[in-house]
Amino acid sequence: MHEAPATAQTYAEAVLRRCDALAACSEEPGRITRRFATPALAQANALVTEWMRAAGMAVRHDAIGNLIGRYEAAAPGAPALLLGSHLDSVRDAGRYDGPLGVLAALACVARLHAAGARLPFALELYAFADEEGVRYHTTYLGSRAAAGTFDTTSLARADADGVAMADAIRAAGGDPAALPAASRAADAIIGYVELHIEQGPVLEALDLPVGVVTAIAGQSRVALEFRGLAGHAGTVPMALRRDALCAAAEFVLAAEAQARATDGLVATVGQVGVEPGASNVIPGAAALSLDVRHHDDAVRTAAAQALQARATANGARRGVAAHWQPVQSSDAVRCDARLAELLGQAIAAQGYPAHALPSGAGHDAVAMAVIAPVAMLFVRCQGGISHHPAESVAAADVAVGIETLSRFLGLLAATGQGQR
Amino acid sequence: MHEAPATAQTYAEAVLRRCDALAACSEEPGRITRRFATPALAQANALVTEWMRAAGMAVRHDAIGNLIGRYEAAAPGAPALLLGSHLDSVRDAGRYDGPLGVLAALACVARLHAAGARLPFALELYAFADEEGVRYHTTYLGSRAAAGTFDTTSLARADADGVAMADAIRAAGGDPAALPAASRAADAIIGYVELHIEQGPVLEALDLPVGVVTAIAGQSRVALEFRGLAGHAGTVPMALRRDALCAAAEFVLAAEAQARATDGLVATVGQVGVEPGASNVIPGAAALSLDVRHHDDAVRTAAAQALQARATANGARRGVAAHWQPVQSSDAVRCDARLAELLGQAIAAQGYPAHALPSGAGHDAVAMAVIAPVAMLFVRCQGGISHHPAESVAAADVAVGIETLSRFLGLLAATGQGQR
Repeated sequence: MHEAPATAQTYAEAVLRRCDALAACSEEPGRITRRFATPALAQANALVTEWMRAAGMAVRHDAIGNLIGRYEAAAPGAPALLLGSHLDSVRDAGRYDGPLGVLAALACVARLHAAGARLPFALELYAFADEEGVRYHTTYLGSRAAAGTFDTTSLARADADGVAMADAIRAAGGDPAALPAASRAADAIIGYVELHIEQGPVLEALDLPVGVVTAIAGQSRVALEFRGLAGHAGTVPMALRRDALCAAAEFVLAAEAQARATDGLVATVGQVGVEPGASNVIPGAAALSLDVRHHDDAVRTAAAQALQARATANGARRGVAAHWQPVQSSDAVRCDARLAELLGQAIAAQGYPAHALPSGAGHDAVAMAVIAPVAMLFVRCQGGISHHPAESVAAADVAVGIETLSRFLGLLAATGQGQR
Repeated sequence: MHEAPATAQTYAEAVLRRCDALAACSEEPGRITRRFATPALAQANALVTEWMRAAGMAVRHDAIGNLIGRYEAAAPGAPALLLGSHLDSVRDAGRYDGPLGVLAALACVARLHAAGARLPFALELYAFADEEGVRYHTTYLGSRAAAGTFDTTSLARADADGVAMADAIRAAGGDPAALPAASRAADAIIGYVELHIEQGPVLEALDLPVGVVTAIAGQSRVALEFRGLAGHAGTVPMALRRDALCAAAEFVLAAEAQARATDGLVATVGQVGVEPGASNVIPGAAALSLDVRHHDDAVRTAAAQALQARATANGARRGVAAHWQPVQSSDAVRCDARLAELLGQAIAAQGYPAHALPSGAGHDAVAMAVIAPVAMLFVRCQGGISHHPAESVAAADVAVGIETLSRFLGLLAATGQGQR
């Protein structure tokens, strides 16, 4: 039996109660919706501020609205290890995607504070103001501001109610003009470490409480349209058809086969629409979304190219044109091998195998990697479900997560590499 | 060279001009929309009434609003051969689907009238008030009333504006209470013969102006839903997915393969929708429409059963449930062999091969087959396009159609079988 120490279990149970308290901070009654720069987010920040202070942290907000608690090093002014995750949510969210990472890290700080311990480096806990990008359809607003990669042209974006981002930031107490000051100097940062629910079913399938992230997958998003010829479902013989949906169906299966045949690759067609879309009309056009991810950019790029060739060749055989429109592409982010190794040691010390896995979802660590080595610890979640009210984690797994982070801090301090 | 006689060509050109004139009778400016019991249909009926009278016909309306012209037999009161098609249209229609059949038949009557000729049987030309079923989502209102198979419960149906069918019929000058009187006694009818654009590409592919319909295909319509499990497109490995769209894609291709492997079978998936329908979410559910048609009901039924088994088996292999919901089923209607033979002779007499083909689309002849032997003559249309403003026919082909119908009437009269 692998038993998490009682203290970590106690902290874990408190963390879950705090996740429940944050879940009550919402824009919508009866469900969790907490977008960037809203009163609901301010309410969550107020609770976390109180908890940070109770853990001995000095609390401030930066210009974008990130909440930051600093637990001073043994020698004041030393470089900081950044910990964190985000407090914003998708619409009708679960209660752990984001908050769990903030509160688990906070629990580690609270343990140090309770023990009167200080590390050779400071700890700065970031509760990022926007990771999901729901309100302004652009992600990582909080961590990009911290990393100095915030795109100031996005300040003019309007939300669904017509509120410009700059105005929303001001209304929430931030300052768009001061955004450059929110960025952190790379030489004052040891690294960025984030705990997060896995949002996938791998740890559950392996019956493991936690896993160490090797890399955050790169992603290619494509809008694909097949254009054939509409026709009467009764009068056009099969041999004379140019059915766009049949071409699209071949592509859906080709994408699946390509991903199944390539270790670690995932390919998803999540959207499909046909024109004209009547039961008695042969589809003249079919539009698909394609999402391809892999932790190795070369593998992902080659897969996307192969699929593009397949779409064109399969379409041509049917007299159906394939239009391939890249929508977005992001490169993979490698986690820092040294930090990941220490996380693995911290897991192994509790008697669990240190399972390494890639992250298929994006995280604040993607933005933070620009200025610091990053590492991530995944905690098993039930059924791999996220972005849904059914999101669920076990207290025992959270305890392992907290214990892992705590031991990791100790190991990092012991390496003497806290001094960058 | 096969030249249609000059007279038929002249009549054909007049028919196309009249199709243009009817195209101006529309509910919507700039496009053709002429639904059941609308002022636009009344306007079309008024033009056709005038043209019928000029061709020596006695004109009346029945209780549903069909316009009927009678050209008396040599011996007044003799049984009638019914000719006809419909004057209603889909939204944003072409100008030939329906009107061409009415006006081509009218041209044949006009030729007889111009020659002072009478046949041993009367000719009754039906301009049906509803075939497309656009306004009340139920087809063949006109021909069902004539055949005595009108479903009076449909009188309570409301259109998109909330107008009950009974009120619409009254407003257009009809009489819902008198509908039984609109039905024709089978023993007073020799047959029903309809000319129609093919609405498919077969005659064009064969380079033939006309073809004789062997049967109107039966149809099975099914609503099919695949239910798997939604998940994150980045975090769920391929091996752990239950992707409903992949199951649906397999089905689309299975339906296509089944139809390709079965002579005369057509199978079409014209609608597809996925839930939740986001580019970064694995589809948890996929809904499809399926339309299967064949002129042999046993072949169609067996194909549908085989596809249902495929959907279930393919889904089961993926952990995806297949829900098969029959929506509608109609049996095939055989055309009368004797009438079809005479149409073929009339075509051959002009030097063309008498190509026989099934109709994959439904027509008023389906409803009329309940009370009379039916026959149909298809006229080539450009690209097989119908239900679209681009619908197009060549005057030379229409001339062959008119000449075929005229010769057919002569052949039928000569057989002496005009006396039923």
